[in-house]
Amino acid sequence: MIVSMRLHATQAEIDEVCDRIREFGYKVHSIEGEERVVIGAVGVGDVTPCLESLEAMSQVEKAVRISAPYKFVSREFRPHKSQIRANGSVIGGDEFMMIAGPCSVESEKQIMETAEAVAAAGAKMLRGGAFKPRTSPYDFQGLEVEGLKLLRKAKEATGLPVVTELMSDSDIDVVAEYSDIIQIGARNMQNFALLKAVGHAGRPIVLKRGMSSTIRELLMSAEYIVANGNPNVVLCERGIRTFETETRNTCDIAAVPVLNELTHLPVLVDPSHATGKRSLVPALARAAVAIGADGLIVEVHPHPEKAFSDGAQSLTIPQFRDMMRDLKPYLEIWKQVRAAETAPAL
Amino acid sequence: MIVSMRLHATQAEIDEVCDRIREFGYKVHSIEGEERVVIGAVGVGDVTPCLESLEAMSQVEKAVRISAPYKFVSREFRPHKSQIRANGSVIGGDEFMMIAGPCSVESEKQIMETAEAVAAAGAKMLRGGAFKPRTSPYDFQGLEVEGLKLLRKAKEATGLPVVTELMSDSDIDVVAEYSDIIQIGARNMQNFALLKAVGHAGRPIVLKRGMSSTIRELLMSAEYIVANGNPNVVLCERGIRTFETETRNTCDIAAVPVLNELTHLPVLVDPSHATGKRSLVPALARAAVAIGADGLIVEVHPHPEKAFSDGAQSLTIPQFRDMMRDLKPYLEIWKQVRAAETAPAL
Amino acid sequence: MIVSMRLHATQAEIDEVCDRIREFGYKVHSIEGEERVVIGAVGVGDVTPCLESLEAMSQVEKAVRISAPYKFVSREFRPHKSQIRANGSVIGGDEFMMIAGPCSVESEKQIMETAEAVAAAGAKMLRGGAFKPRTSPYDFQGLEVEGLKLLRKAKEATGLPVVTELMSDSDIDVVAEYSDIIQIGARNMQNFALLKAVGHAGRPIVLKRGMSSTIRELLMSAEYIVANGNPNVVLCERGIRTFETETRNTCDIAAVPVLNELTHLPVLVDPSHATGKRSLVPALARAAVAIGADGLIVEVHPHPEKAFSDGAQSLTIPQFRDMMRDLKPYLEIWKQVRAAETAPAL
Amino acid sequence: MIVSMRLHATQAEIDEVCDRIREFGYKVHSIEGEERVVIGAVGVGDVTPCLESLEAMSQVEKAVRISAPYKFVSREFRPHKSQIRANGSVIGGDEFMMIAGPCSVESEKQIMETAEAVAAAGAKMLRGGAFKPRTSPYDFQGLEVEGLKLLRKAKEATGLPVVTELMSDSDIDVVAEYSDIIQIGARNMQNFALLKAVGHAGRPIVLKRGMSSTIRELLMSAEYIVANGNPNVVLCERGIRTFETETRNTCDIAAVPVLNELTHLPVLVDPSHATGKRSLVPALARAAVAIGADGLIVEVHPHPEKAFSDGAQSLTIPQFRDMMRDLKPYLEIWKQVRAAETAPAL
Repeated sequence: MIVSMRLHATQAEIDEVCDRIREFGYKVHSIEGEERVVIGAVGVGDVTPCLESLEAMSQVEKAVRISAPYKFVSREFRPHKSQIRANGSVIGGDEFMMIAGPCSVESEKQIMETAEAVAAAGAKMLRGGAFKPRTSPYDFQGLEVEGLKLLRKAKEATGLPVVTELMSDSDIDVVAEYSDIIQIGARNMQNFALLKAVGHAGRPIVLKRGMSSTIRELLMSAEYIVANGNPNVVLCERGIRTFETETRNTCDIAAVPVLNELTHLPVLVDPSHATGKRSLVPALARAAVAIGADGLIVEVHPHPEKAFSDGAQSLTIPQFRDMMRDLKPYLEIWKQVRAAETAPAL
Repeated sequence: MIVSMRLHATQAEIDEVCDRIREFGYKVHSIEGEERVVIGAVGVGDVTPCLESLEAMSQVEKAVRISAPYKFVSREFRPHKSQIRANGSVIGGDEFMMIAGPCSVESEKQIMETAEAVAAAGAKMLRGGAFKPRTSPYDFQGLEVEGLKLLRKAKEATGLPVVTELMSDSDIDVVAEYSDIIQIGARNMQNFALLKAVGHAGRPIVLKRGMSSTIRELLMSAEYIVANGNPNVVLCERGIRTFETETRNTCDIAAVPVLNELTHLPVLVDPSHATGKRSLVPALARAAVAIGADGLIVEVHPHPEKAFSDGAQSLTIPQFRDMMRDLKPYLEIWKQVRAAETAPAL
Repeated sequence: MIVSMRLHATQAEIDEVCDRIREFGYKVHSIEGEERVVIGAVGVGDVTPCLESLEAMSQVEKAVRISAPYKFVSREFRPHKSQIRANGSVIGGDEFMMIAGPCSVESEKQIMETAEAVAAAGAKMLRGGAFKPRTSPYDFQGLEVEGLKLLRKAKEATGLPVVTELMSDSDIDVVAEYSDIIQIGARNMQNFALLKAVGHAGRPIVLKRGMSSTIRELLMSAEYIVANGNPNVVLCERGIRTFETETRNTCDIAAVPVLNELTHLPVLVDPSHATGKRSLVPALARAAVAIGADGLIVEVHPHPEKAFSDGAQSLTIPQFRDMMRDLKPYLEIWKQVRAAETAPAL
Repeated sequence: MIVSMRLHATQAEIDEVCDRIREFGYKVHSIEGEERVVIGAVGVGDVTPCLESLEAMSQVEKAVRISAPYKFVSREFRPHKSQIRANGSVIGGDEFMMIAGPCSVESEKQIMETAEAVAAAGAKMLRGGAFKPRTSPYDFQGLEVEGLKLLRKAKEATGLPVVTELMSDSDIDVVAEYSDIIQIGARNMQNFALLKAVGHAGRPIVLKRGMSSTIRELLMSAEYIVANGNPNVVLCERGIRTFETETRNTCDIAAVPVLNELTHLPVLVDPSHATGKRSLVPALARAAVAIGADGLIVEVHPHPEKAFSDGAQSLTIPQFRDMMRDLKPYLEIWKQVRAAETAPAL
C-alpha cells in the first residue's frame, strides 16, 4: 500500500498516519520527496480496512493498494488454466466449448427442435432460460420449473448438458437439480447473497460480467463464489454499457486476454447479448475464437420472429449451421495454439 | 409503435410485417415515403412481444415504441406527487426529508452516538446498513440481525424512523420487522426476484438507481414493485458510472427534474455515494435542494477514519451540523417553491 | 513517482529500473514488501518521459505519478480564485456571471431582439455562434464574419460584451477582433494547435469541457493556453457523454466543487447543452448557482422552433425572464457565501 | 421522419405541427392512435432543420429521422467496398493492409531501424508521428517538419508509403507533400475546420474514431471529407472511452462489422491505442483479422522503454515479427473469405 500525504502535511500529521498504518499490522517506510511525503506500508496487514481508514483521513491525498484484492481466482494462485467439468464436458481444456440454445424455453416443441439442431451442428452444451430477468414486469418471465423439466427432456434426447440461469437463492435447489451448469446473469453479478448461495450449489457456475462492471469487479464476484466453497467458475464477457447505440452493448473483446493474464478461470464470450443483432453474431464469434476465448454462448431459435425474448439477436438454425461451418478453420488454429500452450516444455 | 422497413423492401415483405402487427392486436397504417415504407401500429396490443417479433424480422430496419413502458409510476397515471409515509414522516410532501446515519451499523456506541447527533442537527430519519453489499468477500459484511436490533434501539432513543438495506428475499421478514423503510441498493436495482418480493413487504421502499441504469430502467424497476402490490416507492439518484475518476460516481443531478416530469414518485439524492468524497458532499447537497429533490440521504460517522466502510465519504458530526446550517436558506426557498406548486389554483 | 515491480522481479531487474529512474534526475528509495518491491522516485526530474519509460519496461507492474501534471492552473500555484475581466465585466469575482444568447447568430433581427431581451432581463454578456461546429456537413455552418459583425452591432446596442466560438486558428484574428471572450468548444478541447494559438489571442478564453474528457484533461488543456501566454481562462462544464439518453449529455455538476478544489480558474455551467431540453434548463441553473459555479451560459432564442440549431434546448425570452426571476433568491445566497469566502480573516 | 405528439395534444396543435412539416417540403400523414397522434413526414425535404424545428415545439414529444444522415459514405450509395490507393498500395482490396511504425519519429536512427525491421517482417506501410497531439503542453510535441523529412528518408530506403498525422490546417501543405496518407487523430475527429481542409488535400485520409464518438458520428465526419471533395477515406477503430481502466481504451471490435454494413469505406483497427498494453496487442490483432477488418495500424519501437511516447503499448521488433508469424494462418483464411466475397456470382 502506498500513501501519499497532502502537500505541506506537518510532521505530526505524518506521524498520525504512520501510527494508523501500524495499527493494521504493517511496517512503515516513509519517503520525503521535494513536494510531499509518500509512505509505503509493507508486510501482511488488514488491507481493505486500512485503505479505507487512510482515505478517510483528511491529511491523506491518496492511498493505493499494490497487491490484487483477490486471491483464489488469480493466476498467481494457480498458474495453469482451470478445467471446469460438467457432465463429461470440459470448459478450459483443449476443446473449444460451444454452448447454444434459445434465450427462453418456450415450449417442448421449441426446445426439442433447437436442442437437436444445435447438437447436430456441433454444439456441446444447451442453453435456455427458465427463470428470466426482464426489465419490465409485464414481459414474459419464463416457464420456471416447467421450463427446467423441458430442458431435462432436451438433454435426455440429445446428450447435451444444460446451462440455465438462477435468479434467486430460493430456487437454488430446483435449478441445481435440473442443470449441469448454473448461470448467474449480468444483472446479478453483484447480487452478493446469490453469489454466496451458489458457493454451495454443487454445480459449476457461469458468471456473466455485469453491464457496467469492471474486470476487477468480475474477478471479485468470482472470488465470492470460490471463497464460499465452489472453485468451478467460468467467466463470460457479454458486452458492457457505453454511449454507443448501434449495438445493444459494447463487447469488450480485449477483456479476454486481460482475464487470461489475471486469472486461471476459463472465459466465454456471448456474442448475442454483446451485439443484440443477429447479423453481427458470426463476425464477433470469429473474433472471440481468434482472441483466445475458451468458448461461446450463442442464442439460437427456430423462429426468432416468434421468440418470447431476444429474437433480434437469435440466430436461426440455418444461420447457426453456417456459423459453425465458417468457424471451422479458426477452431483448427485455436486447437493448435492451445496444444502448443499446454505442451510440456522440452 | 412505428416500424420502418428496410430500403427496397418488397410489397410481400411489407404485407408480412403488417400481418404480424395485426396478430398482436393492432391496426395498421402504412406510409409510403420516397425512400422507404413506414408502418404505424395503432390501438391497444401486446406491445413488447410485438416489438421484439418485429425487430427479429430481417426486412424491418427499426421498430420504436411510442408509449412509455411503465404505467403505475407515470405522471400520467397520477398527476400529483405521491406522499410516502413512514412512521409519521412523509417523503414527497411539503417538508424536505433529511436522512442521515452511518454506512454500516458497527456497534451500539457508534449508532447511538450518530443517531442522537443527526437528530439534534435536524435529520428526520436514520440510515444504517446491517446487511452490507461489499465488492470483496473479505470485507466487513455487516452485523446482520444484530445490526437491525441496534437500529431499533437508536430509533427508540431518538424517535427517528429507520431506513436499512435488504439484500436477499430470505431476510425480508426480519428486515421488514426492524425497519420503517426498506432500501434496495444500486447493485440490486435489477434483482427482479427481490423487487417482486418487496411488493409484499408492507414497508415503503427506497429504490436506488443502479450505477449503470438508465432513468427508464429505474422507473421499470419501480414499476415491478408497484405492480407487485406496493405503491410506496421512493427513488434515489446516487451517481452513475462514467469514465470520470475524480469522483466515485458521476451524480446525474438532472435526473431529478427528468424524474419529476416522468413520475409522481418522490426522488432523493445521495451525495455521499455520488461523490465518494466528504469534501464534496455539502456542495452537492445544496445542488440537490435547489434542483427540487424531495430529500437527501447522507452518510455520517462519528469517526470516519475508523469506519468499517465508506469512511472517505462520511461526514463527521460537526461537518453534518455545518451542512445543515448552510442548507437552511436553501431549504426555506425550497419550502416556498413547494408551497407555490401545491397551492390550489385560484 | 511510485513504481511497483512485478511479483518475483529479480534483483537485477530492480537495479535496472532504479538506474533508469536515476537517469531522469530522481533519487531512488526502494521498499521491500513481502510480496513485491516498490520504488519511490524522489526529487525534481523529468516526470512524464520517466513514467512512460518505466511503464514500457516489462518488469514494472505500474508506475504512478504523485504530483499533479499541471502547474499554472493549480490552486497550489495560486490559492485565490482568478478574476477574469472582459470589457468591464468580471468572471470569478463577487458577482455571478450570466451569459445568454442564441446558439447561432442567424439574422440582425434575431440577434438584436435576443440581445436586448436578455440584457433587460439581467444577462451580463451575450453569447452567439458565428462559426458553428456541426456534426453534419449539410447543416447550417454559421454566418461566419457576417455573424461577427452582427454580434458587434448587438454589443453596441446593449453594452453586453460578446462571447463567440473560434473553430480554426486561421480565423483567430477576426474572431479576436469582434469578440470580448473567445470560446473553445467541447469538440476542440483537445485541438492542441488551437489551444496554442489562443495562448496569443489577447482575449480571455472560455474553455468548454470535452464531452468525454476527464476533469484532469480539462485542466491540462487550460494549462496549454496558460503556458502559451494567456492566463485568462474560464472553464465550462457542459455535460459529458454517458449511456443515459433522457438528456443530451449528463451534467457532471460535482465537477464544479472538484474544480474549485483543484484550480483557481473560474467555472461556468452550461445547462442548455448539458440537458438538451428547454424544460430542464431552469432547474439545472438553480443547481449550478447553489453548488457554487461562477456563472451560467444559457441559450435563448426569440423563436426556438425556428432556430437554425439547438432549438430544443433554447429558452424563449419569457422563459429566460422567468428563470432570472426564480434565480434571484439563490443568487442572493450566492453573494453572501462569496462575500464570506473572500472576506479577510479577522 | 416520424413525429409523435404529446398526450392530449389538441387538434390545433396537431395542425400547427403539420403546417410546420409542410413548410420544410414534406407531405404529411397523420395516424391517430388510442393514446396519441403520430405524424409521418414523407417526401424530400430539408430534414435536419425540420427535425430541429419540431423538437423545439413544446407540443411534440419526439421527432425521429428514419433515413441515414450521410449519403456518400453509405453502402446504399456504393454497394462495393472502396479501394483506397496510396503509392501502389491498396486498402480495401484483396490484400490485408499492415501498417506499422513508431508512435513518434524521434531520430534518424530510430525511424530507419524501425522502418527496415517492419518492412522485413511484412508491413506494407510505415506509420510515424511528426506532429504529436499530447495531453500535456510539457510533453514531447514531435519533430515536426524535421520528422517529416526523416519519414521521407525511411520511405526511400524501404519503399514503404508513409502515414502521418496532421493536426492543423496550417500544416496541410507540408504534411501532404511528405506523406502518402494523412491521418486525422481521434481528438480531431470532430475538428470540422480540419475535416473540410483535408477535403482538398490530394491525399487519402485515415480518419480515427474519436474516443467518445459514436459510429454514426464517425461516418458523419467521413462525410465531411468526402463532401468537401476527397472520396479516399479509410476509417479506424482505436478504442472508445468507457469506465474500464484495465485497458487504455475499450476496443469496440463489433464496430468493424457494423461499419461493413453501413459504409463502403475500408476499416482499420489500431490495437495499440485500443489496449495501451503491449502484451494485449497480438491477441487483439488476431481478433481484428478474424472479424474482417481491412488492415491494422500497430506501434513498433526498437526500444520501447526509451520511446518519447506510447512506449507501454509499442511492440519491440522481435515481438512484431512474432505477431506477423502468428497472424499468418488467420491472414490466409482472411484472403479466402475476401476472395469468396468479391468473386463474381456464377
